[in-house]
Amino acid sequence: MKKTTKKQNERVKIIPLGGLDKIGMNITAIEYNDTILVIDCGISFPDDEMLGIDKVIPDVTYLIENKEKVKGFVITHGHEDHIGALPYILPQINVPVYATRLTMGLIEHKLEEAKLMKKTKRRVVKQGGQINLGEMRVEFIKTNHSIAGASALAIYTPAGIIFHTGDFKVDYTPLFGESIDLQRMGVLGRKGVLAVMCDSTNAIRPGFTPSETKVAKTFDTLFAENRTNRIIVATFASNVDRVQQIMNTAYKYGRKVILQGRSMETVIKIAEELGYVTIPEKTLISVNEMNRYPDEKLVFITTGSQGEAMAALSRMADSTHKKVVIKPNDAIIFSSTPIPGNEKAVSRIVNELARKGANVIFQDTHVSGHACQEEIKLIYSLLKPKYAIPVHGEYRHLIAGGNLAKDLGTEEDHVFILEAGDVLELSEETGKVVSKVTARGVYVDGLGVGDVGNIVLRDRQSLSENGVIIVSLTLERKTGKLLSGPDIISRGFVYVRESEELMQELKKVASKAIEKCDKQNHREWGQIKSEIRDSLDDYLWKKIKRSPVILPVIMEI
Amino acid sequence: MKKTTKKQNERVKIIPLGGLDKIGMNITAIEYNDTILVIDCGISFPDDEMLGIDKVIPDVTYLIENKEKVKGFVITHGHEDHIGALPYILPQINVPVYATRLTMGLIEHKLEEAKLMKKTKRRVVKQGGQINLGEMRVEFIKTNHSIAGASALAIYTPAGIIFHTGDFKVDYTPLFGESIDLQRMGVLGRKGVLAVMCDSTNAIRPGFTPSETKVAKTFDTLFAENRTNRIIVATFASNVDRVQQIMNTAYKYGRKVILQGRSMETVIKIAEELGYVTIPEKTLISVNEMNRYPDEKLVFITTGSQGEAMAALSRMADSTHKKVVIKPNDAIIFSSTPIPGNEKAVSRIVNELARKGANVIFQDTHVSGHACQEEIKLIYSLLKPKYAIPVHGEYRHLIAGGNLAKDLGTEEDHVFILEAGDVLELSEETGKVVSKVTARGVYVDGLGVGDVGNIVLRDRQSLSENGVIIVSLTLERKTGKLLSGPDIISRGFVYVRESEELMQELKKVASKAIEKCDKQNHREWGQIKSEIRDSLDDYLWKKIKRSPVILPVIMEI
Repeated sequence: MKKTTKKQNERVKIIPLGGLDKIGMNITAIEYNDTILVIDCGISFPDDEMLGIDKVIPDVTYLIENKEKVKGFVITHGHEDHIGALPYILPQINVPVYATRLTMGLIEHKLEEAKLMKKTKRRVVKQGGQINLGEMRVEFIKTNHSIAGASALAIYTPAGIIFHTGDFKVDYTPLFGESIDLQRMGVLGRKGVLAVMCDSTNAIRPGFTPSETKVAKTFDTLFAENRTNRIIVATFASNVDRVQQIMNTAYKYGRKVILQGRSMETVIKIAEELGYVTIPEKTLISVNEMNRYPDEKLVFITTGSQGEAMAALSRMADSTHKKVVIKPNDAIIFSSTPIPGNEKAVSRIVNELARKGANVIFQDTHVSGHACQEEIKLIYSLLKPKYAIPVHGEYRHLIAGGNLAKDLGTEEDHVFILEAGDVLELSEETGKVVSKVTARGVYVDGLGVGDVGNIVLRDRQSLSENGVIIVSLTLERKTGKLLSGPDIISRGFVYVRESEELMQELKKVASKAIEKCDKQNHREWGQIKSEIRDSLDDYLWKKIKRSPVILPVIMEI
Repeated sequence: MKKTTKKQNERVKIIPLGGLDKIGMNITAIEYNDTILVIDCGISFPDDEMLGIDKVIPDVTYLIENKEKVKGFVITHGHEDHIGALPYILPQINVPVYATRLTMGLIEHKLEEAKLMKKTKRRVVKQGGQINLGEMRVEFIKTNHSIAGASALAIYTPAGIIFHTGDFKVDYTPLFGESIDLQRMGVLGRKGVLAVMCDSTNAIRPGFTPSETKVAKTFDTLFAENRTNRIIVATFASNVDRVQQIMNTAYKYGRKVILQGRSMETVIKIAEELGYVTIPEKTLISVNEMNRYPDEKLVFITTGSQGEAMAALSRMADSTHKKVVIKPNDAIIFSSTPIPGNEKAVSRIVNELARKGANVIFQDTHVSGHACQEEIKLIYSLLKPKYAIPVHGEYRHLIAGGNLAKDLGTEEDHVFILEAGDVLELSEETGKVVSKVTARGVYVDGLGVGDVGNIVLRDRQSLSENGVIIVSLTLERKTGKLLSGPDIISRGFVYVRESEELMQELKKVASKAIEKCDKQNHREWGQIKSEIRDSLDDYLWKKIKRSPVILPVIMEI
């Protein structure tokens, strides 16, 4: 292992290309001279106003422009907001990917689907292990999170150590595996850490995030209370430890487990193959074997805990699931908390399930995967960095994370609340944002990447609010004489049958607009179109206070 | 006062026309022989999938069909979900409106705006007072809620007493006015109550909703902690007591109060005129006087606590407010909890405010206006009704409310979880749903009422996801020969400039479809249109997995 010695007056750059300001799309470049390494490469899910968008991936223009410097992606853990964009980005920057085993298993599943396996160099790193990337060295350090294999990264650069926590919590009593490697952090802190990039998701919450053990106790109680009926547990597919825990409880109570939902089956299959999940003997059965067992011998573990419309639980709630029919007295345990924005979707499903007589249970069946204030303080206290850079959170979370660092002694001007695209240059002496690079979300809609932008989204917004009216007419090429039309059709505007009169009025208004152009000898299509558009727009706003998209279509023969 | 004596074998009907299954659009008819009275007449706000809809009002077909029976609206309190539909419904059924003073003040404001004041008979009822309506008698009973003047209704019918709680909580120590009239409920319960319709909004929450006094203490602490900076408090305009409380605290700490937001100014003006708010001497100033006072002498009380895009707080956050500019160190207190569905909007504003350096405060500055489980139990224990009908809540809340009634001794089959439109017939002997009447939401979009229905909304949904493509062509009338086109335009689909090639491809696909029709001698427009639509749809799905709305437009000359 090469030794990356710290030198005087050296500078390193930290360049987040996403993952700040909102939760999702985590990707950060660390740059020293001719070496760039990239931490994570995630997607974010679209905001409400991004109509029709499936996901958002980072713009990696800066990495492409510096292709020859980029040595690899180092991935902290296997959640979508940290690995989901790899299939889109790797074809643009073909560099090796480094991750712990489960994370790599999940990445490989994506690469297989995208037919990128052969083209992509991959290397599994053990927790505690180190890799050399150009002039930097990266150490993977065990943490706790809601997925196994989560790591913090210590990045040794000639300018000093940059410590990135990844997504983490401190679980002194994890159900499976080891606790977070606090000792190593102590050792690093004693050596001297230049900067800490710390997960701030829960930085506004006081106290400690409870241990996963707490949930285990609740599950035991719930299984004991529901001995005579079927149990259905909804949780995140990626929460491998939670699924393990539910399977163990099922085994203890003599129940068979059925996994439901594509991602649930995929993730658990990968986790089992890689030894991250141990399925208790004869516990897992397929949904087709369901009828061989009475209800009280069954547990379903299903996707859909966020109310996702296409997930298995939604299909059960809507009676569109092919195999599983909700019965009165089914106990349905939500082992998750709605992510902000999903509350209504979750409510909808809970009501549907309640309507079918199911007993829906929410309480004490989930703990967060992210550190609260006391845990964040612990990390800063162990690492005592010169600079603090809160990451992973909305602006208010980053501010709160920064305040914790200040409370623990980081100097006011050594705390950086960055925006995506900021180039932060750090040395032992000074730290400041020296420039800005391109960093924005690229929209993925179906198979299209980047062909939908803000103008298209604005149009979708207008269309969604009031629909579209199309005014068509045919003109004679030579004379500009109206040969046919104007005809009016609409979609998403009003019930045409019930508003026959209004449609006739619109036709008259359009005709008048055309006549006006004719009289004033306006022959330009642009003029005619805007005359039609303006007069209909005026008329509709006055008449019914609505502004549909108005599209005049002119044909010429 | 007429005495409405209870008779043997008499039956009364309870017909909710809204307000069940979701929170909002409260309206319930009580019918006995030739008397119908209607409790409340509210709107609901649109669900996410109701694109472009401004509000939803009840369908009152049943009331119109029985117009001669309807004796009046009795209104429990002045919130939008209880009074908001009156301006739409009164022109259809012109009957008197009965309410307590503040409620009536808020109703009158609406009637003025809708120019309905002269046409509408109104009568203010005191709490404790009774009115006769045909063969029924209604008593208004004081409750506590997040607006003053809230009442429960005891409806005396020949079949027995129906008790409707309205929206309520039990506040033993309200900041202003009296506590809920539990004694009267005890008296009524001793007499014998046929049915209770009980607010179930918080029926899944254990314990007691805290008193408003709790919030008062928090405000005092927050004002003491923020002596040197400006304070901005966001809350509901309709929460008159809260606003009073903030004004009192402001007065105590020597600050001037500025109200922001149209509804805030209107509601407080009405409340003050009617004596529901007492503005401490010289405390209220206009925003134009703001500059005469230093920051530490000012408090703004503003709308926008739910992240509403057009509210005053949003405009401050987005720097589009004409007068108020957020400064670093402003303390911004959210005295409210986000209503499910509004979390993301609230988050967005909080982040914007934090970005401007403001200190955003959420903790302990709000209590619910609705009863939790222990309070609901108290009401059932006082009234001991024969029948229990949980109201005001989503399905799971109604179920939980019903379970509380059962726990307290109401027989299993005497608890009714109703749906809007159910006609529940009750007598001393039996209770059952005997029929169903029309009850649905009518969509209001701009000035249009009911001209947007599910087909239009489905179109808006499709338009919002993938936009629209218009294929236009001109045919010769006699021969069906293609004279011009096909031309393609799109909105909300892709950046046309960046997808020139795709647009050319679409033109080719459309041309081919037209040729195919020509060859097969398909001259019907319907056939040509569906051939074009299908082939473009196929092509686009295969090529980019998207399904825009495709509208062929054919002109003929």
